[in-house]
Amino acid sequence: MARTLYDLAGAEDDRRFSPYCWRVKMALAHKGLDFQTVPWRFTEKEAIAFSSQGLVPVLVDGERVVTDSWAICQYLDNAYPDTAPLAEGAQAWAHALFVKHWTERSLQVALAPILYLDILAHLHPKDRAYFRTSREARIGTTLEAFTADPPAHLERLRKVLEPLRATLAAQPFVGGPSPSVADYVVFGAFQWARCISSVQLLDAESPVFAWRERMLALYGGLGGKALGYSTIPATSGGASR
Amino acid sequence: MARTLYDLAGAEDDRRFSPYCWRVKMALAHKGLDFQTVPWRFTEKEAIAFSSQGLVPVLVDGERVVTDSWAICQYLDNAYPDTAPLAEGAQAWAHALFVKHWTERSLQVALAPILYLDILAHLHPKDRAYFRTSREARIGTTLEAFTADPPAHLERLRKVLEPLRATLAAQPFVGGPSPSVADYVVFGAFQWARCISSVQLLDAESPVFAWRERMLALYGGLGGKALGYSTIPATSGGASR
Repeated sequence: MARTLYDLAGAEDDRRFSPYCWRVKMALAHKGLDFQTVPWRFTEKEAIAFSSQGLVPVLVDGERVVTDSWAICQYLDNAYPDTAPLAEGAQAWAHALFVKHWTERSLQVALAPILYLDILAHLHPKDRAYFRTSREARIGTTLEAFTADPPAHLERLRKVLEPLRATLAAQPFVGGPSPSVADYVVFGAFQWARCISSVQLLDAESPVFAWRERMLALYGGLGGKALGYSTIPATSGGASR
Repeated sequence: MARTLYDLAGAEDDRRFSPYCWRVKMALAHKGLDFQTVPWRFTEKEAIAFSSQGLVPVLVDGERVVTDSWAICQYLDNAYPDTAPLAEGAQAWAHALFVKHWTERSLQVALAPILYLDILAHLHPKDRAYFRTSREARIGTTLEAFTADPPAHLERLRKVLEPLRATLAAQPFVGGPSPSVADYVVFGAFQWARCISSVQLLDAESPVFAWRERMLALYGGLGGKALGYSTIPATSGGASR
């Protein structure tokens, strides 16, 4: 069965930086489900008009069209009950919903001022005005003002990451001994960063750093082989991955 | 079997405000396990010396002595497998660990400058120097400087609560349709506040407000009947609960 994911791309077709699309790609790999991706840009609304909305990810699974990354993950567990579950039972899903909202409303909020100018620089030229206009309306200022003072934004990120750091000091994955949908959601935020920015977000000694390396290596290096920047500090060598 | 919990108290014996002890009291009630509490003050280290450490909660369950609120919750699920589980399976526990660390490293960190002077005011006189000295060493300034600018602290709390607000807009409890250990951990932080402070932390329209009311009503009103301040804004009537 042909399974197709519409996946946000930058200037290059293989610059895939959407945190929401990364959740779905990792979830599909977790379940061992083959898929192909179609590069998509913010302004290509007509290409996904069949989904009755204007955002990716859009998964086309045979006759089914599913949108919204969380809904897609839940769909996958329901539609493929004989594959590895993304979360083990209703309560594990309920708890993971908190991790999802923390990722979107704390982690990604802290990452946005660190990343927005790098996103702008990596976008397809036809997407740049859309990105600037839509984001500046949301943040209420210019991208340049919003992203000023990088050291303060990195310090704020460090504080926001404290719960994740403590969790990953105690267990290898947010899901425990093996990754769950909660790991894919958090990892999506880090891939958002890695695919468009060379900023080093994490100390090499952080349990979050070691966890991200484990996540990058999963499923034949699905995350790690993607076009982006090295997670290894420049002093250790390594440029674009 | 006699089951005894050493429970932090303030000036009055029934002023029980420890967020960590509240986790355990709610967990014991969740499992339908009877218990009695012993009021304990910060400086009564000798009273719990039998536990080989100096903090509450300490649970004495027959011959077993268990310390650390999270370890006590896990102990209860292991020791009483025929009672309602605090989390349903290893992955639900793993995800709940993130909620625990978020509560301690984000939520309680945001609450501390809102609550510390009220805690000081409600402590037993013999505990006040201990509290001031230990907390000022931790925060690196005076309690008065730390707690200055309450509107800024409330605004910061509002942002920290965003993931919880979004989660509880989608489901009645962090655990889903019914409360789990994750709810008790978060609720402990709100009881810490309610038992010693009249500050209104939440808008009455917030899903977190409605969730807290549900939590206060559980198990015959275990949380709601405890000595503390009303969660209902003063304009609606209601002083100390």
